[in-house]
Amino acid sequence: MIRLEDIEAAAGQVHKVTVKTPLFHAPKLSETCGFDVYLKKENLQNTGSFKLRGAFNKIASLSEEERSRGVVAASAGNHAQGVALAAKYFGIPATIVMPETTPLTKVEGVKSYGAQVVLNGANYDEAYAYAVGYAKERGAVFVHPFADEKVIAGQGTIALEILESCEKPDAILVPVGGGGLISGIAVAVKALSPKTRIIGVAAEGAPAMKLSFDAKRPIDTTSVRTIADGIAVRDTSPTTLEYILRYVDEMILVNDDEIANAILFLLEKQKLVVEGAGAVGVAALMHRRLDLPEGARVVTVLSGGNIDVTMLSVIIEKGLLKSYRKMKLIVTLVDRPGSLMKLTEILKEAQANIVQIGYDRTSLDLKFGDAYVSIALETKGKEHQQLIKRLLHEHGYRFEEEH
Amino acid sequence: MIRLEDIEAAAGQVHKVTVKTPLFHAPKLSETCGFDVYLKKENLQNTGSFKLRGAFNKIASLSEEERSRGVVAASAGNHAQGVALAAKYFGIPATIVMPETTPLTKVEGVKSYGAQVVLNGANYDEAYAYAVGYAKERGAVFVHPFADEKVIAGQGTIALEILESCEKPDAILVPVGGGGLISGIAVAVKALSPKTRIIGVAAEGAPAMKLSFDAKRPIDTTSVRTIADGIAVRDTSPTTLEYILRYVDEMILVNDDEIANAILFLLEKQKLVVEGAGAVGVAALMHRRLDLPEGARVVTVLSGGNIDVTMLSVIIEKGLLKSYRKMKLIVTLVDRPGSLMKLTEILKEAQANIVQIGYDRTSLDLKFGDAYVSIALETKGKEHQQLIKRLLHEHGYRFEEEH
Repeated sequence: MIRLEDIEAAAGQVHKVTVKTPLFHAPKLSETCGFDVYLKKENLQNTGSFKLRGAFNKIASLSEEERSRGVVAASAGNHAQGVALAAKYFGIPATIVMPETTPLTKVEGVKSYGAQVVLNGANYDEAYAYAVGYAKERGAVFVHPFADEKVIAGQGTIALEILESCEKPDAILVPVGGGGLISGIAVAVKALSPKTRIIGVAAEGAPAMKLSFDAKRPIDTTSVRTIADGIAVRDTSPTTLEYILRYVDEMILVNDDEIANAILFLLEKQKLVVEGAGAVGVAALMHRRLDLPEGARVVTVLSGGNIDVTMLSVIIEKGLLKSYRKMKLIVTLVDRPGSLMKLTEILKEAQANIVQIGYDRTSLDLKFGDAYVSIALETKGKEHQQLIKRLLHEHGYRFEEEH
Repeated sequence: MIRLEDIEAAAGQVHKVTVKTPLFHAPKLSETCGFDVYLKKENLQNTGSFKLRGAFNKIASLSEEERSRGVVAASAGNHAQGVALAAKYFGIPATIVMPETTPLTKVEGVKSYGAQVVLNGANYDEAYAYAVGYAKERGAVFVHPFADEKVIAGQGTIALEILESCEKPDAILVPVGGGGLISGIAVAVKALSPKTRIIGVAAEGAPAMKLSFDAKRPIDTTSVRTIADGIAVRDTSPTTLEYILRYVDEMILVNDDEIANAILFLLEKQKLVVEGAGAVGVAALMHRRLDLPEGARVVTVLSGGNIDVTMLSVIIEKGLLKSYRKMKLIVTLVDRPGSLMKLTEILKEAQANIVQIGYDRTSLDLKFGDAYVSIALETKGKEHQQLIKRLLHEHGYRFEEEH
């Protein structure tokens, strides 16, 4: 098992390609949850995630001769970019195996660092198996995303930065998928600030490590499903589980709705793009999943920011509906001249901005002459929505709210 | 006119409520534009913008007696939040006048700092006039958003932080609306690093200060229209123009499309939410509006992050279409059983993910039995879109692309 010295040595390496990401107090989040919350903004790291730390430390630890044979990894995400950028720094060939279904933007992202991309396998497991074989055949070094001491030591360097900016926090919240990040952090923190609680946060849809933590033995799951794709790991690594059982104090779960709320909060209030995996700590804070004394000083690691903008857009739209800033109505328009004009007049009076409108006269459940109008409105909150609905009722409109 | 000492004095004040925002190198943007680009991430400032600096310095400069009478400001945006938070720090009453049409989220944002909100006026000018009168009547201090020496000195503190992290940059790009930020920055930079070019960037839809800079006298415009609402200023302040004419080297304009591209770039590549006003410098860099030697060290100030998420969502959607990651088609489905199934089969074969579908059989220009199917597809790039269109042609489908 690695020790503090290994992490300190790693810090002497990784700074060549990483930045010291900011650690800032979060006043609004602190107010919301009653703790004194600090955010470690690792989404602002080069490549957009902490994975660069571990990948770089691993490659830096190889001999010249090993490096010259190149490195191989399997990943469609943050690890791929970390390995690609680290290999670029050393000027050695990197091959990243990605599942065939990987979006072009992710392929291009890795290629832009000069790595070779091989598309193979219908899913991550198949790509992984292919990458291991590919590395073996060519005598190249396979860089595992978490079950590797050099990788774990590299990830642990983030803890040194945290403790440098924030003295003896009461707790640190760390996203958990494969467990590499929390293993590295826990080793460093328990050596330097043993009273700081290390709390792992995993996604309900990918609970393997949480189940293993509770059972104190590796438990694999049959499938994963979560918007936090960076921590969607199906099987438990015995390597990282050993660290977690020894050093981690607690493991908790958050669900996709909570993660989506946290992503939207970070976007609106912190001006940060954080991916699902990076937002689990904030999700736990917002939804009061933590049993800590009031005012406890809590650091949460925003581990990465690589989220698809299409997903962001969906999260925003759903968030607007949930927070009463958007409302969808299906109004039955009665057969009367000026009926639509009257409707738009009422909405104008209520200062509700129409952002989408649809018109249907052919539904079988409509009387002839009547029509359904589906409208999406920008609204100013719950009371504003109630006002709009009251006005429509008063004017005799029949309508349903769409969710 | 203020001098460096005034800005240094302001720095001794504003640090009580501000954070030193990060200044990081931007490798990808540097590659794109051929300069060595650094981003001053002031969108991560408390309240989400630099405006807190000036508002705090102004209020700190008042006598106890003046402060006790409270402060008044007119703003629906960043200045409102800056004044509200600064007043909260001193425990004095703040009244913010906002136009009646201000979205509830902005009203709530300012109220959350404990300020009183008065909704008055159909637009900013009316709210401004009301606020000035309101302050006069009550003997309260009116805090101007830019034409005020204490405010300008406060904004200038950002320049001290820039020069502390980045020695003698060749140029600094600064968003320009009313001109308070660039005035403060220019005074500090010309005193400490006179060879550094100060370049103002304004929005094409709000060019008053650029016109005044060229004409060397204050020019007002009749209206403004830009997505960069933080710099949508109609009239030129003689106060800030004087600084700009003395200290600023160059003024350039960028348009809304360029600003939207920059916002999307910052969101995707920098993991930052930046409002339109904050993104103008990056827009100028991405669209090569700058005449600087290759490799020049350029700092651009991301002045704020307070953009409506609804606007973000629109920018993402349009950006996906422009960058060939989304495509909208209207396909004429011929009257043949299984025609829709065949269409979806082709799209599956082409690995194009359908994200929206509409069906219309009643258009007058359709033959009976035919139908229009409008589909929105997630695609992997330009070549992928061409492949999809070729496949549809080969299978005899008629279609049009929707933009």
